[in-house]
Amino acid sequence: MQGRDGSMSEHAQRPRARDVGLVLGTMSSGALNSITDVADVRVGHVTLIEGSGPLRRGVGPIRTGVTVILPHGGNVFREKVPAGLFVLNGFGKCFGQEQLEELGLLESPIAMTGTMNVGIVADGLAEHAMLANPDVAVTTSTANVLVTECSDAYLNDMQGRHVRQHHVLEAIEKAVAGPVVEGTVGAGTGMSLFGFKGGIGTASRRLPGELGGFTVGAIVLGNFGRRDQLTIAGVPIGRALADWNPTEPLPEKGSCIVVIATDAPMLDRALQRLARRAALGLARVGSISGHGSGDYIVAFSNALRFPHDPDESLLTLQHIPEGGRLIDALFQATVESTEEAVVNALFQATTIDGWDGHIRHALPLEQTVDLLAQAGVIG
Amino acid sequence: MQGRDGSMSEHAQRPRARDVGLVLGTMSSGALNSITDVADVRVGHVTLIEGSGPLRRGVGPIRTGVTVILPHGGNVFREKVPAGLFVLNGFGKCFGQEQLEELGLLESPIAMTGTMNVGIVADGLAEHAMLANPDVAVTTSTANVLVTECSDAYLNDMQGRHVRQHHVLEAIEKAVAGPVVEGTVGAGTGMSLFGFKGGIGTASRRLPGELGGFTVGAIVLGNFGRRDQLTIAGVPIGRALADWNPTEPLPEKGSCIVVIATDAPMLDRALQRLARRAALGLARVGSISGHGSGDYIVAFSNALRFPHDPDESLLTLQHIPEGGRLIDALFQATVESTEEAVVNALFQATTIDGWDGHIRHALPLEQTVDLLAQAGVIG
Amino acid sequence: MQGRDGSMSEHAQRPRARDVGLVLGTMSSGALNSITDVADVRVGHVTLIEGSGPLRRGVGPIRTGVTVILPHGGNVFREKVPAGLFVLNGFGKCFGQEQLEELGLLESPIAMTGTMNVGIVADGLAEHAMLANPDVAVTTSTANVLVTECSDAYLNDMQGRHVRQHHVLEAIEKAVAGPVVEGTVGAGTGMSLFGFKGGIGTASRRLPGELGGFTVGAIVLGNFGRRDQLTIAGVPIGRALADWNPTEPLPEKGSCIVVIATDAPMLDRALQRLARRAALGLARVGSISGHGSGDYIVAFSNALRFPHDPDESLLTLQHIPEGGRLIDALFQATVESTEEAVVNALFQATTIDGWDGHIRHALPLEQTVDLLAQAGVIG
Amino acid sequence: MQGRDGSMSEHAQRPRARDVGLVLGTMSSGALNSITDVADVRVGHVTLIEGSGPLRRGVGPIRTGVTVILPHGGNVFREKVPAGLFVLNGFGKCFGQEQLEELGLLESPIAMTGTMNVGIVADGLAEHAMLANPDVAVTTSTANVLVTECSDAYLNDMQGRHVRQHHVLEAIEKAVAGPVVEGTVGAGTGMSLFGFKGGIGTASRRLPGELGGFTVGAIVLGNFGRRDQLTIAGVPIGRALADWNPTEPLPEKGSCIVVIATDAPMLDRALQRLARRAALGLARVGSISGHGSGDYIVAFSNALRFPHDPDESLLTLQHIPEGGRLIDALFQATVESTEEAVVNALFQATTIDGWDGHIRHALPLEQTVDLLAQAGVIG
Repeated sequence: MQGRDGSMSEHAQRPRARDVGLVLGTMSSGALNSITDVADVRVGHVTLIEGSGPLRRGVGPIRTGVTVILPHGGNVFREKVPAGLFVLNGFGKCFGQEQLEELGLLESPIAMTGTMNVGIVADGLAEHAMLANPDVAVTTSTANVLVTECSDAYLNDMQGRHVRQHHVLEAIEKAVAGPVVEGTVGAGTGMSLFGFKGGIGTASRRLPGELGGFTVGAIVLGNFGRRDQLTIAGVPIGRALADWNPTEPLPEKGSCIVVIATDAPMLDRALQRLARRAALGLARVGSISGHGSGDYIVAFSNALRFPHDPDESLLTLQHIPEGGRLIDALFQATVESTEEAVVNALFQATTIDGWDGHIRHALPLEQTVDLLAQAGVIG
Repeated sequence: MQGRDGSMSEHAQRPRARDVGLVLGTMSSGALNSITDVADVRVGHVTLIEGSGPLRRGVGPIRTGVTVILPHGGNVFREKVPAGLFVLNGFGKCFGQEQLEELGLLESPIAMTGTMNVGIVADGLAEHAMLANPDVAVTTSTANVLVTECSDAYLNDMQGRHVRQHHVLEAIEKAVAGPVVEGTVGAGTGMSLFGFKGGIGTASRRLPGELGGFTVGAIVLGNFGRRDQLTIAGVPIGRALADWNPTEPLPEKGSCIVVIATDAPMLDRALQRLARRAALGLARVGSISGHGSGDYIVAFSNALRFPHDPDESLLTLQHIPEGGRLIDALFQATVESTEEAVVNALFQATTIDGWDGHIRHALPLEQTVDLLAQAGVIG
Repeated sequence: MQGRDGSMSEHAQRPRARDVGLVLGTMSSGALNSITDVADVRVGHVTLIEGSGPLRRGVGPIRTGVTVILPHGGNVFREKVPAGLFVLNGFGKCFGQEQLEELGLLESPIAMTGTMNVGIVADGLAEHAMLANPDVAVTTSTANVLVTECSDAYLNDMQGRHVRQHHVLEAIEKAVAGPVVEGTVGAGTGMSLFGFKGGIGTASRRLPGELGGFTVGAIVLGNFGRRDQLTIAGVPIGRALADWNPTEPLPEKGSCIVVIATDAPMLDRALQRLARRAALGLARVGSISGHGSGDYIVAFSNALRFPHDPDESLLTLQHIPEGGRLIDALFQATVESTEEAVVNALFQATTIDGWDGHIRHALPLEQTVDLLAQAGVIG
Repeated sequence: MQGRDGSMSEHAQRPRARDVGLVLGTMSSGALNSITDVADVRVGHVTLIEGSGPLRRGVGPIRTGVTVILPHGGNVFREKVPAGLFVLNGFGKCFGQEQLEELGLLESPIAMTGTMNVGIVADGLAEHAMLANPDVAVTTSTANVLVTECSDAYLNDMQGRHVRQHHVLEAIEKAVAGPVVEGTVGAGTGMSLFGFKGGIGTASRRLPGELGGFTVGAIVLGNFGRRDQLTIAGVPIGRALADWNPTEPLPEKGSCIVVIATDAPMLDRALQRLARRAALGLARVGSISGHGSGDYIVAFSNALRFPHDPDESLLTLQHIPEGGRLIDALFQATVESTEEAVVNALFQATTIDGWDGHIRHALPLEQTVDLLAQAGVIG
């Protein structure tokens, strides 16, 4: 059942944060308030929802999927982009991290999926790299693919590893620029956030023209936090909603993946610095980065491209200076985009049930809006 | 002029956060709500305030000092404690970091001071280590001392490097358990925080008995942030006070040092994890960890002691398990202590002038309390 | 064709380094001079050799395999062991590295394989974890599996990803203590080393009784280096053999994986230090860690076990002191074991052809022994 | 007594490695076979030798000094150069490391000195930065100075911290391009190497024209190793000289600092990779990087300059591609330069006595040359 992936109808029924008048931070968002405001970034989802009732290990119910982020519309293996990474809490898997750190380059789409699927999704990305580049692993080097994950075990038959290699190819095929479907979709299908339904969220910020007019966009796979930690715009929403469809006080087993994109020309080290700031955005929503939460952040710039097979000639490039107001504006944009992307994930995610009667309720928006209004945060 | 160091009278005129009814987070604080709630931790300040008027490089005015944190009251070189470190933004100096990371041990008091003084203060700590251990650098190894810093250039003649070796010895001598003087004192004398007067702040959290009753304490040297970023309990206080004694919109040149202490028996790697969480506490107050802000966090446990000269016998130790609710409670305690320590620094710091008419105003408490009350955050 | 895996007959025809009188370093080796001298460590291989002639992508010829190292004979997910990692050159994939670094624990067998197989092998290890622990990814956390790789593209149809999930299970099943088959076997089947046939090699060192009598063992997947770099016992063997079946002067596309095991009780940070020393062993044989060589080192101690589900009680453990002669002896043992393991890989590996007439010749032992004798290195 | 610093006469009496026909590695050295083959790099020493007889703590005997390496002849604070760092063993102090890693830039001369002097030497470099840049710490940021160290406690009254701030200024003043005095000089005055007299050594390699003709130079402060570990050109010289003026079998308390310079335009991450390769050069001489040996490596490129106060405009730069043969040639050059620099330190260092009758004998060159000739390594 993958019908929802290309459609925004269901999700359109729930507003995003800005639709209810909630403004987070002080900078302007991009046109779509989405990671795809960074020109040429593409996002694709494959959502897998099937079966219901008791858990049958390896069979279902299935509540999972895969989401891919393409740094640009070209052949990423041939035209690599600089990237940096920050691990806020490494209780998770991040396939491909080491080479990205060694060389400072991203050479594949970034995939997000459920934890037990990382191996198969990595294999799917490898297949994609070989299909697009028949010389990979024959006459040129192998491809370093990047796969991140969160656990959707609460709702999904995770042992079944239901995302197959072909789903990865399909998600890449479907990836488009333009509006991004958020919430209970793609890798976000089975995810939980502060005890509510979580999943995919996105947001962006645009720097003023005198600072280059660069864009920073964030997309999150949000799957972390206890109910009582949830804070929106400084308002302790989670505590106020403690009695609304209460969840069992389980230790956090979630995770959070953040991908930051920018068109500001930046190299790996500067992008690592950007990645670190996304952690501060997570904190604004109440994250304490619990022991069991694998919190990984990847940042890339698609304003620079590195050829796969350079000859011995020097490479010429332009990049931003670090110092002055520009880098701080990029940091601020990262913090704000990340914060708002998490809130959008909560606002957009729709209620879904899982195995053995598990259910994750969407954040009740009416109450949330009331609470925000009472605190004077929205008009 | 160092008269204020031992006295709490001046600071007692300004309340701490809890004194105005402001409760941050959900956990209980320790008895003093201070890093010294961790038994046997000691803090000492030497404050240097001298002269006024135009800057005379190398002469004054002097608005600086040194603060030392002793992990315990014994000989730290002989009885080392496990420690971990996190660099949120490395635009700063942290003398001694490398060996601490290699061996996972702290073997000296931790000093905080103004940036240009790091070399001399390190030399002062080295002198202290040799006085207490005459074999250092003769028949046993050298001592690895730990010095952190923030820039007090806005108020202080930093080129004069007015903190001398003997001031370090004096601060160690003065270090005591019990209440900690906060605000414009010790290393905090010349510091700025969100465009207001900053400096030293502290806070603590105590875990419930069923989680061991452990204590986590934080002390910060707060010297970061632009006015518009300041957020207290989720309320955008900085923006509300934009027109109150406005500051010039300078790029941030600050920094923030956080020291986390605990009596939970933890080793270096687990303490690094604790240190990382302190960054999330800074984010709650509005930090974006600006480019120019050297943000360093050190965490130690004084529940474990490592002898300087072990023989070849195995060492036996007990430490906390990672997993279960205990580690998450320690993380939460770290986030909350750090957040509140920054707010206490703002509440306690008193207005001071510097060279060439520079002045840093203390946070106006009356307006702040009104704003917090309006937002429903305090009663 | 996997018949060779359980048999030592073919390999027994070629000597190991010590069999020709070559003694590397100054410490005593263990009884088997193998990683399995560390009690309870087990090694298993599955070798895949099939077809010959031109490359048919996705079909063959097949020259690959998988090798697994089990830290102990129990359930590693339930009884985790401390581990540390060092990346000498991160041009490679090391699935599971992040969580190992965050928590300092190894909770699965370590697999070595060909590069393009990492995803599938990771999935195979995940399957193994779930078979052994049905609660994985359902009621307890997911399993963090560790997979390392080198490229066997020169001989093997790497695009075919011929190692399947069931081969991983088979390798684990076959894993035994006792002598380890070396050379052209398991993951080493298609590997090249200094322009000769490479693959699996192992060696060990035993500390004297007054230093606890601990054992350090190394196993390498050796697949790196240009011919002219090969140095054995300080003798430039590679340059002396420059004209013997010369190889094309390709840029290095290899890699090297080293796994260090010890029964000295050590925690993650100390094991990272051990891992770093293995790099010095690689250097002794001539490695410059070329750009294209993914050089990863994992070190674990099976003298300590950490339960999967600790309650909130403190854990008691004994570990070695760092300081004194013990740690230096462990370092020396690591350097020497790694050096000798690489030489054993060269001595044991047998000639094999690959696709399109590619061939890797085994190191010519007669000439090598003559050269070593001329230099006075062997009698 | 500093007379030897500007004079090469004493050292000229002992040959360098190449002078006795010893060729290490396969690449060509630069004209001087020195770090100063990298155009515009400068080296300056101040040597302090005073008194003899019993140790009087704080008084003498004095056997120490300071060595500075200037990345170029200009104002390094205003024209920063990219740099990277690798810590092989962090049992030591490396003042300034954190900011260098965060920003990837070196903005001061690099100083080497005795361990207890790091604080004071850092203060001396700070003074130099302020003298050259009166706005430092007033209207612009502070300067991040880089100080490295080894312990000269065996010969020197290290508690006396005899290197003062003015000695640092003097060493910078004296720093020149051209031949570098090696051995018992500057920071090397009191150092020991494999149980012989150690200290300063240098070497270089030049890439062929078709690879850009770039130069890589190394300078080491060599102070590590036990006698039996010393290996020159693969020949176990240390073991052969075991009975020659034997040293007590002390645990290693040494350290090794390596500075790598290049005129190949490289950024911080690539320079970190270069730095890592220097460790492999140390291994070739026998290093196991003992527990007590603080082994730090800094690599910089002076082909790129970064302005202190960039405006918001993009920076344009050219740098080398990673991939192809160029980067591997740079790696090889680093390994070989480091190896030869250590051997030159041994060849050039002259016997000196210390306190309480301690003495470090220079490597006996006649025997060494004989041993090398017997092994066929020299003609």
